[in-house]
Amino acid sequence: MSSSSPSSYDKYDIVIVGAGPVGLLLSTCLSRWGYKIKHIDNRAEPTPTGRADGIQPRSLDLLRNMGLKRAIMAHEPAKVYEVAFWDPLSHSKGIHRTGTWASCPKFIDARYPFTTLLHQGLIERVFIADIEKNGTKIQRPWTITGFQNDGVDKDYPVQVSIAHIDGTEKETVRAKYLFSGEGARSFVREQLGIKITHKDPIAYVWGVMDGVVRTNFPDIKMKCTIHSDEGSIMVIPREDNMVRLYIQIASSSDPDFNPRKTATTEEVQAFAKRIMKPYWIEWDRVEWYSVYPIGQGIADRYTLDERVFMGGDCCHTHSPKAGQGMNTAFLDAQNLAWKIHHVESGFADRSLLKSYETERKLIAENLLNFDAQYAKLFSQRQPSAGEVSTASKGANGADENEFIKTFKASCEFTSGYGVAYNENVLNWSEAHPAKSELFLSEPKGTTTLRTGRTLIPATVTRVSDANVVHLEQEIPLNGSYRIYLFAGTPSKTKKALADFAANINKKDSFYASYSRANVDSVSYHERHNPHSKFFTFATIFNAHRPDIEIRDLLPDVLSRYFDHVYADDVWDCRVPNAKAAAHAKMGLSESNGGVVVVRPDGYVGCVVKLAEGSGTVDALNDYFNAFATKKLGTSKAQL
Amino acid sequence: MSSSSPSSYDKYDIVIVGAGPVGLLLSTCLSRWGYKIKHIDNRAEPTPTGRADGIQPRSLDLLRNMGLKRAIMAHEPAKVYEVAFWDPLSHSKGIHRTGTWASCPKFIDARYPFTTLLHQGLIERVFIADIEKNGTKIQRPWTITGFQNDGVDKDYPVQVSIAHIDGTEKETVRAKYLFSGEGARSFVREQLGIKITHKDPIAYVWGVMDGVVRTNFPDIKMKCTIHSDEGSIMVIPREDNMVRLYIQIASSSDPDFNPRKTATTEEVQAFAKRIMKPYWIEWDRVEWYSVYPIGQGIADRYTLDERVFMGGDCCHTHSPKAGQGMNTAFLDAQNLAWKIHHVESGFADRSLLKSYETERKLIAENLLNFDAQYAKLFSQRQPSAGEVSTASKGANGADENEFIKTFKASCEFTSGYGVAYNENVLNWSEAHPAKSELFLSEPKGTTTLRTGRTLIPATVTRVSDANVVHLEQEIPLNGSYRIYLFAGTPSKTKKALADFAANINKKDSFYASYSRANVDSVSYHERHNPHSKFFTFATIFNAHRPDIEIRDLLPDVLSRYFDHVYADDVWDCRVPNAKAAAHAKMGLSESNGGVVVVRPDGYVGCVVKLAEGSGTVDALNDYFNAFATKKLGTSKAQL
Repeated sequence: MSSSSPSSYDKYDIVIVGAGPVGLLLSTCLSRWGYKIKHIDNRAEPTPTGRADGIQPRSLDLLRNMGLKRAIMAHEPAKVYEVAFWDPLSHSKGIHRTGTWASCPKFIDARYPFTTLLHQGLIERVFIADIEKNGTKIQRPWTITGFQNDGVDKDYPVQVSIAHIDGTEKETVRAKYLFSGEGARSFVREQLGIKITHKDPIAYVWGVMDGVVRTNFPDIKMKCTIHSDEGSIMVIPREDNMVRLYIQIASSSDPDFNPRKTATTEEVQAFAKRIMKPYWIEWDRVEWYSVYPIGQGIADRYTLDERVFMGGDCCHTHSPKAGQGMNTAFLDAQNLAWKIHHVESGFADRSLLKSYETERKLIAENLLNFDAQYAKLFSQRQPSAGEVSTASKGANGADENEFIKTFKASCEFTSGYGVAYNENVLNWSEAHPAKSELFLSEPKGTTTLRTGRTLIPATVTRVSDANVVHLEQEIPLNGSYRIYLFAGTPSKTKKALADFAANINKKDSFYASYSRANVDSVSYHERHNPHSKFFTFATIFNAHRPDIEIRDLLPDVLSRYFDHVYADDVWDCRVPNAKAAAHAKMGLSESNGGVVVVRPDGYVGCVVKLAEGSGTVDALNDYFNAFATKKLGTSKAQL
Repeated sequence: MSSSSPSSYDKYDIVIVGAGPVGLLLSTCLSRWGYKIKHIDNRAEPTPTGRADGIQPRSLDLLRNMGLKRAIMAHEPAKVYEVAFWDPLSHSKGIHRTGTWASCPKFIDARYPFTTLLHQGLIERVFIADIEKNGTKIQRPWTITGFQNDGVDKDYPVQVSIAHIDGTEKETVRAKYLFSGEGARSFVREQLGIKITHKDPIAYVWGVMDGVVRTNFPDIKMKCTIHSDEGSIMVIPREDNMVRLYIQIASSSDPDFNPRKTATTEEVQAFAKRIMKPYWIEWDRVEWYSVYPIGQGIADRYTLDERVFMGGDCCHTHSPKAGQGMNTAFLDAQNLAWKIHHVESGFADRSLLKSYETERKLIAENLLNFDAQYAKLFSQRQPSAGEVSTASKGANGADENEFIKTFKASCEFTSGYGVAYNENVLNWSEAHPAKSELFLSEPKGTTTLRTGRTLIPATVTRVSDANVVHLEQEIPLNGSYRIYLFAGTPSKTKKALADFAANINKKDSFYASYSRANVDSVSYHERHNPHSKFFTFATIFNAHRPDIEIRDLLPDVLSRYFDHVYADDVWDCRVPNAKAAAHAKMGLSESNGGVVVVRPDGYVGCVVKLAEGSGTVDALNDYFNAFATKKLGTSKAQL
């Protein structure tokens, strides 16, 4: 311990350890929102090759919402739209395709119904460029050597010691938060004494190889799971004409299991050749090859004190095959980022931070359950065509084995859209403290939106410039709640909108209570947060764009969001008979609309009827009261 | 004249003068295709601000086909989907909107139904980066001082002298071609003595101002034409929250016309304020302001000898308002690039180069006719609302003045899709030397495709990786003819495809005759040109993707284009009842298909029935015979 006094140490809002996906996304958000960050990584440089590479549809939405999708796509990643299943033929005649299935089937309403494959290093660099643009520099190769939430400094309760990995330099800093995105081997987790629970006792040794091949195997540019009499393999296409092969080298269920079992590049290639018969395959080059043992595990806690947090592989490990690691890490970070932001900027009560663990651990548990089932099926030899009844082409019915069934059932989960947070203060339900009759809910059938789920995508026309846009993307990931006023038919909702405006303008409303300090001097050009940093309003009318005169139809407080007024006038094949497709998709009345409150991370918080009188705003005040720092809507209570 | 012998000068395939849109696009294509280029520009650096900024829908297709769209879009350009028309109210009450109209209406089947607005310098830099990547460096600030097609060196007939603009350095080189993209004031054009014909005798003085404004004018983010009692103005949104105003300062039809008339920034701003009443407008900053006189003109010739060429503003000048200058320049360059390439690589007869002038001059003439009409209407004061019968909102019928009518009528032209080349050796018609009965044609109703027009866009599924793709974009702008085999139902066309393959494999076919010298050692990974640099094949089946086994359905020569086999299984709202939407949109039989030959620049050359026997290939041989260097299909003739 240094002899200097804690108050003399450099102070940071957060120390982030690890610059993999979870640490980088957290750092990106908090850097953009103006936080002072000490970000370290024990590697001298970003991932050079290999490692995680699958961006699921929901994660691509998130990256776009962060303005990073174009930079990812500039690397021309591979896109997986379908998965092919290959099983053994009888009498050792090699493999044959038993069917294919969409990786993100049509029943999922996804903007990008494909998985994007790009090596982790390129993805990391996109984040790093953004982080640096916002003033945070990743300190490499540095590692964490000690930390303590000693509360000696009330504002910066956590002391963190870090060192250059060669031990030549050391630093001690104080921070409001410490975040470990260290990966499976976490110093922080170990120091906290948090145990890993191994849900599935089976461990595996995996080989993974990236390279360029020549082959007559017809599905080499698709994602494939191949079961043969020789073993199993997974094929995943990659950027730059590469292909990744995942090969299970050993399983703890093998009679002679050895977790140190390994295989050379040549052995794996020879193995792949045997599995893929009657097709031939040759390697032009191997870009990356690695063998690693992996067991399934989940950390018992994600934080003990809501000051020292963990996320990503640090909290959950599993087989690489479902392509979920990086995606789960992204969403861990996103979930924590806005909650820290809302607590630190005085909007939300500190107790909000408890919901990080409850929300994200549930998702990890779902992931591990899925993974265990998937991994087990994958490692089993599948029955050959001769062993099942009639092998009908197309994988419908007869030859749908358990593996295919599991795969289909899990599409929503693996695409990222199955992520659903349980009811809590953020995700309204009948059990929520806010009790207004005006709340709409999916269980009651008064909306199709489900709290704790992402907003349903909808295409609309922006009124100010007539651009056809994706409504769910219009408000960027800026830390604000997104309040969508589906305003139905203008003539029907005129009074309700006026009443809404009058009530949010009351000084104890959720909105006025958290008005910007400099609200009178905000730039004319501010589009998202002219009044409050915590809220952005968007209004969607059931009308043709040219018929919407924003300043005539909307009260001042709403027309100020001039660039967030939309015409619900774009036809959608999912609701072919609707006049106002966005209203219809959300299950809201096309004439009377409704108010949709979306959390800063894009998950639905609550849905409220757009009613005349003060009821709608009262309901919103009650909803936010469950976690806001100020008492909201007291004027109503006093009546 | 230097005393050195011409044979000692440095030799280039082409000298390009000017690094504006026309020179840059030409240089990009030819650099990619391996030509040795001397490219000079008399400016010290690319356009810093202002100038041309509108990329029309068709040009965006082209940029995407060149792989440059993403880099353009990374600058977050403004997008114009609609144009608003504002006219004076009676009794000097200011302006009111009489209607809006899509800038690229739905009757045009465009992938990107909007105009992209970005300042010319950013666009130039995207090209420059690509050019440099391909080994060409733009030499600045250098200018052309003399040239001569003296034929002294048969292979490099043109001698060109260039100099640094400060006169300190000089060079003389020999080239196969010289291209002037110098802009309206062209040394090359002057030296050649080529006259400019002024189609419209009226000249104008324009003011143009880019800046950031605050205003309550509701359409400030739309393209607007505003006519008021005070004068006329055009509003165009720009990137970075900017707006461009075009103001006509003087017209030669004014009684006191002075082509040197000018106006200060403040005068133009005051003028805009008066015009836009009752709305207010204030400037935060002005990024660029310029006043320039412009007359309409067209060069009588684009080349005299098919060695020294001109394009872009050098050949046609007009008012800036229709946003056509840069787009026409792009298409001039693209048209010339592939023709030079096909002549220089020995595929096409030198006479092909004559079609550059005939094709592009026609387009410029159409442009000038449109522009004259448009400019005249724009500069006229429009009748006020009181002067026309009933002013009904929405601009339907009653208050549609001549200006709006002209605008609507010209949408196809201004979007770029109205560009249509006349029949000639490239664009098949009944008058073409190729006379087979198997040619399909739009006039006869046997296809909806029109020769000399762009291929109709269609969305299909790529078989190899199940990606949903835009068929018209699948073959990049690589200088090759694109031969699309719409193969209908696999069972119906099996023999026709086999016969097609057998006949193109004959040694005197268009295809075999121009086979690559190194055809046996072409990389396994070559996707587009495994057999010939001049042709890429794509096959589109009317079948579901999973039912297409490429190597079973296609003969070897076609299955080699493994990544260019598509399933026509994506529903299209323009042909809602079609099973195979791409076939249906092209007006081809969904069961029997047809062969569509598309020029390297994306314009349809000819359409042929996919028939059993040798007829289909015979017809294609005849088509290419009209301009190929070798005698094709002689085996047929001998029968």
